Amino acid sequence: MTYYQTKNIGVVPPPHLSDKLRLYHVNMNPYGHRVLLILEAKRAKYEIYKLDPLKLPEWFKEKNPRLKIPVLEIPTEQGDKFLFESVVICDYLDEMYTRNPLHSTDPYVKAQDRLLIERFNELIKGSLECFDTNFAFGSEQIIQTLDIFEKELASRGTNYFGGNRPGMLDYMIWPWIERLLLLRCVNAKKFDSKRSLFPNFADWSDQMQLDDIVKKHAHSPMEYFDYYKNARAHCMAQDWL
Amino acid sequence: MTYYQTKNIGVVPPPHLSDKLRLYHVNMNPYGHRVLLILEAKRAKYEIYKLDPLKLPEWFKEKNPRLKIPVLEIPTEQGDKFLFESVVICDYLDEMYTRNPLHSTDPYVKAQDRLLIERFNELIKGSLECFDTNFAFGSEQIIQTLDIFEKELASRGTNYFGGNRPGMLDYMIWPWIERLLLLRCVNAKKFDSKRSLFPNFADWSDQMQLDDIVKKHAHSPMEYFDYYKNARAHCMAQDWL
Repeated sequence: MTYYQTKNIGVVPPPHLSDKLRLYHVNMNPYGHRVLLILEAKRAKYEIYKLDPLKLPEWFKEKNPRLKIPVLEIPTEQGDKFLFESVVICDYLDEMYTRNPLHSTDPYVKAQDRLLIERFNELIKGSLECFDTNFAFGSEQIIQTLDIFEKELASRGTNYFGGNRPGMLDYMIWPWIERLLLLRCVNAKKFDSKRSLFPNFADWSDQMQLDDIVKKHAHSPMEYFDYYKNARAHCMAQDWL
Repeated sequence: MTYYQTKNIGVVPPPHLSDKLRLYHVNMNPYGHRVLLILEAKRAKYEIYKLDPLKLPEWFKEKNPRLKIPVLEIPTEQGDKFLFESVVICDYLDEMYTRNPLHSTDPYVKAQDRLLIERFNELIKGSLECFDTNFAFGSEQIIQTLDIFEKELASRGTNYFGGNRPGMLDYMIWPWIERLLLLRCVNAKKFDSKRSLFPNFADWSDQMQLDDIVKKHAHSPMEYFDYYKNARAHCMAQDWL
């Protein structure tokens, strides 16, 4: 992975791609985090173009009028092409790079995993609700979603949703779980008591943190805590704990 | 295809499956229509269990607490399993039955098609807005979405989105386009003038109506018109035209 750097950053678009992919990414963005995990899992050659969401370059707005983030730029014989939506980008990468297949080869399990990735959106919505200080509703959505994933892991009887190693579902939900760990910075005792409600999921979370791919793009709970505190998370965390 | 019939309908669940699939379907429902098209395209063996959305059986609610419709029931060695979400069900069928592949084998084209299927949700939302009599907003959404698909078809330069025959994207959007044709019943002249704004898409629509798979589950514009009139579409159609 290389970071794209130029003194003209933001004024002119980056050069056309030759042999690698380019991810347009906003720092700390969980959807971009998904794509980073899959790029690493697939050992794809890529560079990151960092975007400031408050100062999106004009050429970027022209290429991407709906201002979707993240975006994957792909070199092809017909010129560079763009893909949007983290889940679609990640499925594309899984199909394009046959090394380390992340989706189950069983179409039924793959379909179930896709439904669970969709279901996980409720935890994402819950986190946003908490962030918007609608805490009671948001935390209930988070707890209910964690309960579904706890039961799913217990019924699969494996360390990871993907079996004996992380698969697509594991990586698709990880960015938000990594961020939830910031709550331990606020009140470790209360965090640990909530955690004990979801023993399988807690073990899964411990193991995910040791995964080499996860470690490459990990931030510590304290880094997330500081990041979100600078936005609006301080009140969210106090309400939560 | 066989329809499931029993005098106990609604009281006890239908028997376990042996060699075929079962689709739980609400008559005239466009999401179920999607699955019917793919079941036919794949020549899968299936039966339909018709549900009345106002009288959902208790056993159905227990199996499906979120009351999702349509549902595909699949016989497996571990008993019958259930799949939800029309797009996930259809992708599952495409992977499970290798005959007549509906998704492109090019992962980039497949990803683009998935994005377009998602984009099409705006036409679906627009139709619902019209149905809710928020006509100005709804019709603008429909027109904008049709414009995207018109341009996409022109840029592909093929008769169908899938190439020289209908593919997954064609069938995923068809149920709503078949229903839009009801507007011709209200004001043919105005319908035809709108239609002329989208010449490629209009040709595509003409060809889709002649497709054998489409014909198996087609309803005439007048049937849809009567059906929606009985709900609330009468005012929608009058506003539209």
